[in-house]
Amino acid sequence: MKSYPEEKPQVVVIGGGTGLSVLLRGLKEKPLDITAIVTVADDGGSSGRLRNEMKMPPPGDIRNVIVALADTEPLLSRLLQHRFANGGLAGHSLGNLIIAAMQEITGDFVHAVREISRVLAVRGKVFPAANQGIVLHAEMDDGSIISGESRIPLAGKKIRRVFLEPEDVQPLDDAIQSIEQADMILIGPGSLYTSILPNLLVPGIVDAIRRSRGVKTYICNVMTQPGETDGYTAADHIQAIIDHVGNHLFQYVIVNDSRIPEPVRKQYAAKGAAPVRFDRERLEDMGLTIVADSLIQYETYLRHDTQRLSEIIVELLDQSGKN
Amino acid sequence: MKSYPEEKPQVVVIGGGTGLSVLLRGLKEKPLDITAIVTVADDGGSSGRLRNEMKMPPPGDIRNVIVALADTEPLLSRLLQHRFANGGLAGHSLGNLIIAAMQEITGDFVHAVREISRVLAVRGKVFPAANQGIVLHAEMDDGSIISGESRIPLAGKKIRRVFLEPEDVQPLDDAIQSIEQADMILIGPGSLYTSILPNLLVPGIVDAIRRSRGVKTYICNVMTQPGETDGYTAADHIQAIIDHVGNHLFQYVIVNDSRIPEPVRKQYAAKGAAPVRFDRERLEDMGLTIVADSLIQYETYLRHDTQRLSEIIVELLDQSGKN
Repeated sequence: MKSYPEEKPQVVVIGGGTGLSVLLRGLKEKPLDITAIVTVADDGGSSGRLRNEMKMPPPGDIRNVIVALADTEPLLSRLLQHRFANGGLAGHSLGNLIIAAMQEITGDFVHAVREISRVLAVRGKVFPAANQGIVLHAEMDDGSIISGESRIPLAGKKIRRVFLEPEDVQPLDDAIQSIEQADMILIGPGSLYTSILPNLLVPGIVDAIRRSRGVKTYICNVMTQPGETDGYTAADHIQAIIDHVGNHLFQYVIVNDSRIPEPVRKQYAAKGAAPVRFDRERLEDMGLTIVADSLIQYETYLRHDTQRLSEIIVELLDQSGKN
Repeated sequence: MKSYPEEKPQVVVIGGGTGLSVLLRGLKEKPLDITAIVTVADDGGSSGRLRNEMKMPPPGDIRNVIVALADTEPLLSRLLQHRFANGGLAGHSLGNLIIAAMQEITGDFVHAVREISRVLAVRGKVFPAANQGIVLHAEMDDGSIISGESRIPLAGKKIRRVFLEPEDVQPLDDAIQSIEQADMILIGPGSLYTSILPNLLVPGIVDAIRRSRGVKTYICNVMTQPGETDGYTAADHIQAIIDHVGNHLFQYVIVNDSRIPEPVRKQYAAKGAAPVRFDRERLEDMGLTIVADSLIQYETYLRHDTQRLSEIIVELLDQSGKN
């Protein structure tokens, strides 16, 4: 227990994409001080257009996190997530346009994200992994290079490694400080090569994670992602991270151990996705403590059960004496 | 005095453009129940593009009124009024895009305006003059027809009359009801032919004004508008309304009687605008009670002094026993 009950445990969440938003939706209901560090490597769709036309970091992942953490009514969330269907705006997400407008007003992306977060009563802090857009490149198994986050999973090849351009991109001081002071650092869930690693490859981020005394936990995806993690087990996910940034980054790995219903499996199999197996021995050989639980929820898509996941995270904080 | 002190006097304001917004900014600070009925004839700029591309009524005048009546902090107002400078969005106002997104979500413009008003804690009700875009046409003094609100003042000719297309556009029941129940109906300030008359020409609006027992007041512009009201006195403004919709629509006319400083006069003269003289005798012959006061305020532009104007309106309500 912390000495001052009003000091909530500080949890830093690193990632991007839908996985991160799902996690945050549950986490924000817990008495935690949340910081989200969000990838800025997206180059597809509305984010890609804004990135090109307005010379700003891609806002899409940030927008999803803001909406997940915002204390707003359902209609406002829907408005922020609305994608225009008609006219010259077709394909743009309104929330992206709001961030773009704030960036034009403030002249600075980080400042814009902070102000939007304030206006929308976001429960926590949201930092882009860097104050500039990053280009993600992938070296594939055949030696070819695919450039652009949105193109990498479409190449239909096995990824050998990903790397950033520029390589010397600067992380935010505030992000580094949050990691250093964190009681818990959560990495994932989310696309391994296109959401998680683009954050970890920003120079300084991994060093800060290593320096931090917080509990470090990898939350493994429930399903493989076609073009990214085909056939990957949980240990394969961790191994990919080790191959990029070195060993001993995490103490815990959270995996789903409930069986995915056959019709859902089939639905996903048709798109080339399969359940991620967790290979207990390999994970233990990596020095990881496995937290396995029934973690899935199915509506139209299979998602992490955000409430159960949040409970487990609070339990881990308790067990580790950080709460 | 009303019998129930919690029943605030109902004030209906009819118009569009900057004039209406300036008026509302002061009026919203008074204990009044405000309804704004706003023109949907705009076809220029961001509104014109959205109107064409998204088949929706032009949102610009509505946006200005929403921002004027909203209970928001300055940065949020600035965000809503922000006009993009870069990329494919250049020229669009963010507030217009928010209304456009809500229109796509709700499928209905009036509903969209109501929901946006609610989300932004608007102090009052905002109704478009009609639930569809209106095309404004002008017959000029030489018999030529100019079509499109934004083009009319640019023709450099004297306007003989304006008319709507479609002519049988329907007003909102809620707007008609508000007018009928109003304790005061304010028309203007604002562009006579392109903001005021497009509202009054919607069938049913003028009849409702005539039926209403509310105090009916015309707030005259301080300056003439090039291409619209060149050389017009206050009585010429009223006469133009009489020529379009008949006599005896107002009991009061509010005019500015303070002298406009010479440098400001010159600044406006360079753009073809001059102070609107008020011709007391002609106005009295029209059966109008003149309320003349020092009503101007100058920052970068000459504007109505919204606070003084609001005080006068409350005084008129008091005098007429409606407050």
